Amino acid sequence: MEIIRPAILPGFLELLPKEQLFFNKIKSIIEENFQLYGFLPLDTPVIERSEILLAKGGGETTKQIYFIERDKRDMAMRFDLTVPLARYVAQHYHELEFPFRRYHIGKVYRGERNQRGRYREFYQCDIDIIGDRELDLKNDAEVPAVFHKIFTQIGIEARIHMNNRKLISGLFQSYEVEDLQEAIRLMDNVDKLPEDKFLESLEEVISSETDRQAFLEFLSFEGRNIEKLDYLKSLDIDNEIFNEGLAELEEVYEDILMLGTPEEAILIDLRIARGLDYYTGSVFETFIIGHEDIGSIASGGRYEELALNYTSQSLPGVGMSIGLTRLFFQLMEAGLIEDEEISFVDAMVLNMTEDKKYLYKVLDRLRSEGIKSMAHYEDARFGRKLRYADRLSIPYVIIIGQDELESSKVSLKDMITGDQELMTLDEAIEKIK
Amino acid sequence: MEIIRPAILPGFLELLPKEQLFFNKIKSIIEENFQLYGFLPLDTPVIERSEILLAKGGGETTKQIYFIERDKRDMAMRFDLTVPLARYVAQHYHELEFPFRRYHIGKVYRGERNQRGRYREFYQCDIDIIGDRELDLKNDAEVPAVFHKIFTQIGIEARIHMNNRKLISGLFQSYEVEDLQEAIRLMDNVDKLPEDKFLESLEEVISSETDRQAFLEFLSFEGRNIEKLDYLKSLDIDNEIFNEGLAELEEVYEDILMLGTPEEAILIDLRIARGLDYYTGSVFETFIIGHEDIGSIASGGRYEELALNYTSQSLPGVGMSIGLTRLFFQLMEAGLIEDEEISFVDAMVLNMTEDKKYLYKVLDRLRSEGIKSMAHYEDARFGRKLRYADRLSIPYVIIIGQDELESSKVSLKDMITGDQELMTLDEAIEKIK
Repeated sequence: MEIIRPAILPGFLELLPKEQLFFNKIKSIIEENFQLYGFLPLDTPVIERSEILLAKGGGETTKQIYFIERDKRDMAMRFDLTVPLARYVAQHYHELEFPFRRYHIGKVYRGERNQRGRYREFYQCDIDIIGDRELDLKNDAEVPAVFHKIFTQIGIEARIHMNNRKLISGLFQSYEVEDLQEAIRLMDNVDKLPEDKFLESLEEVISSETDRQAFLEFLSFEGRNIEKLDYLKSLDIDNEIFNEGLAELEEVYEDILMLGTPEEAILIDLRIARGLDYYTGSVFETFIIGHEDIGSIASGGRYEELALNYTSQSLPGVGMSIGLTRLFFQLMEAGLIEDEEISFVDAMVLNMTEDKKYLYKVLDRLRSEGIKSMAHYEDARFGRKLRYADRLSIPYVIIIGQDELESSKVSLKDMITGDQELMTLDEAIEKIK
Repeated sequence: MEIIRPAILPGFLELLPKEQLFFNKIKSIIEENFQLYGFLPLDTPVIERSEILLAKGGGETTKQIYFIERDKRDMAMRFDLTVPLARYVAQHYHELEFPFRRYHIGKVYRGERNQRGRYREFYQCDIDIIGDRELDLKNDAEVPAVFHKIFTQIGIEARIHMNNRKLISGLFQSYEVEDLQEAIRLMDNVDKLPEDKFLESLEEVISSETDRQAFLEFLSFEGRNIEKLDYLKSLDIDNEIFNEGLAELEEVYEDILMLGTPEEAILIDLRIARGLDYYTGSVFETFIIGHEDIGSIASGGRYEELALNYTSQSLPGVGMSIGLTRLFFQLMEAGLIEDEEISFVDAMVLNMTEDKKYLYKVLDRLRSEGIKSMAHYEDARFGRKLRYADRLSIPYVIIIGQDELESSKVSLKDMITGDQELMTLDEAIEKIK
């Protein structure tokens, strides 16, 4: 038989068992917190009608779409979870209760250029709260609060940077900027462009020298969060949008703290704008403290119109998203998370006798006690079986020999200390638990 | 703005929130048991190299493959989880420990003809135990035992039908059948073909009239499992393969019982053959008692060579699989599972005061106690908010009014009885738990 070389496509990620267990642990932390904070699970098809995915028109992501060749070619693979959410809420509008709080953890596809740490298939983990025509500002605080809890539990020190698009728009309006989108895009690139290049572009956007100086001062203002809020108030800008944005920023910031997020985990960051057109209020980005070079690991914000392309209903919302596959790769690369010794089972049973009844009784008991367990049935030496347990980081081995069988006991071997002790099954269960 | 009609593709399934919660509950039962019985999670790319998926050559499934149009068209979407498993084990052979016990719950894609209850995207839930050159027969019993536990917990009465391919092959050999594959395929269709058609085809396969009669008797033998085993022994067939198969059938059957599966949940079914070429020993199919017309809801068996197309290593295994999406649809259709009132949260908090501190304190406490909870922040009448809780089947509403705020208490409303009571937050937490 001709053998085909077993390999996956470039740009796709596949994990070995131990990495997979670790990845799943992080995914579980995310999912459990999404549930704890009251979000509904959603699962939509990976394949959508092409016209749905292309509705928004040509951005970078639409160029990266995977189209499916079958039947009439109206199919393509989703490149994010926001477009499917918009389509879902528009489609099922009359069957949903608002505010509609949903989470979605699923794979998305982008035909990106193949480079280290960038994947063409990756998990996106999103939460959004969608209102029917209106959505209270208090929702804006919940979203970053969930993500703070998640990062803390994963064991990484992350800081959520926040700003407000109204504040920025109002500021630009006060400078009599004509092309607001262009100005926001420029601001989004402040840390990416060389300084002279940035200043040059800035001249095209803000015509007055005084305003440009004021803007540069705005961008570089340093201080504690509370000092930044005071500074913004002291600017005394006579623009309604600016002041609305400032009031929102202050309120959301206070709410986040009241929701239990410590002050040092939140940063009012006047340089954050978020390029995407559709953000209209709060904007969030998340950086790992001391590893800001990795870039934002979780971002989002408030938008006025979720589903303009699919419905005339007004659906404001607020949401945030993690690209989990990339984050996992980065955390491993930077050594920020320890590759813990997670095992897929709590105990492995080794039967050294010819009897099977007692072995099966033991297995059944363990499992009914919620102890994840397996038996090593293969014909192999004792030492090889222990090595199997060791390599798979299995913490306990239960040994059934002739003595154990006759006395209805078991020997419990602790694979970390190497200690082995004869005891009743109840005692062993107690110890494993 | 031009509005695009929000819709999904035909043959794809998308659930509303309550159905989704119910679907996820079933998926969790499956996953928890897979873990409890000691299987490792595996997650492979949905997209594979086309040559990997096409390696086995033209079956019905390869005609249904979704190809991806991008770059050099070497990509396609997986149509099952077995081919990716084979590829994975062959590729990572030196990095895995054997026996390799893995579970995989993931979406697969088949461009099937569009018909009710058949989906083009569906969840497959698989377990397999793969050995390195050898795999002990005791593994064959574990796999159906897990599935029995799963169906019991889902709340459906299912019976696992079992047989052995060696027994069948040996029987056909004793009849001097020339085309074994053809004979097994015919047997697989015994309940699908009209009787005369079946008998006609049988004549082409088994030439002797006496043997045909013996085979028909074999197929129609009724009795308890133990009687079937006695009957098979009484046939006294002088064929090594037959007797090996009979010994295996008996041993696996006994092991399944010893693993805690009740006798009435297992049926030795001499009519089960399973068409697929690659099964070589135990074969399993699962039927819902009283709803056998639905067809097998979980199937599998023992195979000698998992990955012949990708490696020269001998990798025997045993596994079983559920097509979850289809099963879910069928269970709902047949009214076999009750659409329980599952809520995404345990409690909803309603703040009727201007204060936010106490509200956030309550929310934070609830969540840190593991109580899934949300606050309804919107500006709406009390009655409308209670209706929201009611429609989403939220069991408890925690009300914070001026009195509650001042006394640092809460009012807990039981949404089933309608009872409302003033109590401390600790008492409320206790009650919700």
